[in-house]
Amino acid sequence: MKNILALALAVAVSTLLPNFAPAEEKFSPWVDAQGAITLPKDFRRWVHLGTFVVTDEKAPGYGVHDVYTQPRSVEAYKKTGKFPDGTVLVKEIRKVKSGAMTTGFANWAGEVLVWFVMVKDSRGRFPKNPIWGDGWGWALYKAEDPKKNLATDYKRDCLGCHIPAKDTDWVYVQGYPTLK
Amino acid sequence: MKNILALALAVAVSTLLPNFAPAEEKFSPWVDAQGAITLPKDFRRWVHLGTFVVTDEKAPGYGVHDVYTQPRSVEAYKKTGKFPDGTVLVKEIRKVKSGAMTTGFANWAGEVLVWFVMVKDSRGRFPKNPIWGDGWGWALYKAEDPKKNLATDYKRDCLGCHIPAKDTDWVYVQGYPTLK
Repeated sequence: MKNILALALAVAVSTLLPNFAPAEEKFSPWVDAQGAITLPKDFRRWVHLGTFVVTDEKAPGYGVHDVYTQPRSVEAYKKTGKFPDGTVLVKEIRKVKSGAMTTGFANWAGEVLVWFVMVKDSRGRFPKNPIWGDGWGWALYKAEDPKKNLATDYKRDCLGCHIPAKDTDWVYVQGYPTLK
Repeated sequence: MKNILALALAVAVSTLLPNFAPAEEKFSPWVDAQGAITLPKDFRRWVHLGTFVVTDEKAPGYGVHDVYTQPRSVEAYKKTGKFPDGTVLVKEIRKVKSGAMTTGFANWAGEVLVWFVMVKDSRGRFPKNPIWGDGWGWALYKAEDPKKNLATDYKRDCLGCHIPAKDTDWVYVQGYPTLK
């Protein structure tokens, strides 16, 4: 009888609280149960963190790099100095346009080349998925196919360029004045 | 008697609709009744429109220029191709920092130098105020004193640099991919 009552109570509670799903299912709208990462559509409406500009076309990171994250992640970072779980950093890289302006010779952003995405995960949620590790999920999309993550192994495809930023959780925060 | 009834009705309506103030009072939270313009505090939480980078320290517009506006203005511009009344454009100009990165030689933003602000006004609300005209209010604040608008005559202080952008309502929209 006690078991039946407990069951009835559990059913009632799960009916009253239909959103009471396990926390992992709600980790991120842009990460599925296997850890696959989707490029968020509306990231340009998020908060802009900063810009890096690499004008040399032959450089490995040529382009105007604009970086965006969710408003709540900025709030949390400013309080704690850490990116909260679920933080998405989107780095949009565009061709460099340039020319003489009234300001002086200027560079600005042209067509999109690629998007880099990092998703914060401090709990190691996807130990078997090689795009996750060192506290983040890692992804790369080319403008031609924004649905296909070209990174398949973050250690080989992503980490190399981030090693100088290891002490700031792999993120080049010196270029992100909005976090200060 | 008719007059008394009309008066009573007017009082009743004004009591029932306490927010029924003249439209001009609500034009913008950052513009007072005389047309004085205030630098918005939270513009970096608005939508980032784009970035211009002028690396030459001797150029008149040296710095990393990041431009922000309200989310509703982006929505309206994408629909109509025009900035709606009350649109605020904030151009934050920071020192250029630079150095070798894993991406290649890069430039990014340092300390704030100045903020330029434009407020859209298609109705010529402040004909006697010389910081208003050509469809906008114009302002300039230095980092040392963000409360003091240093522009006193937009034709002398501001318009010169914007002449090449006259056909796009004085705004360099080619550098603002978020509007496309």
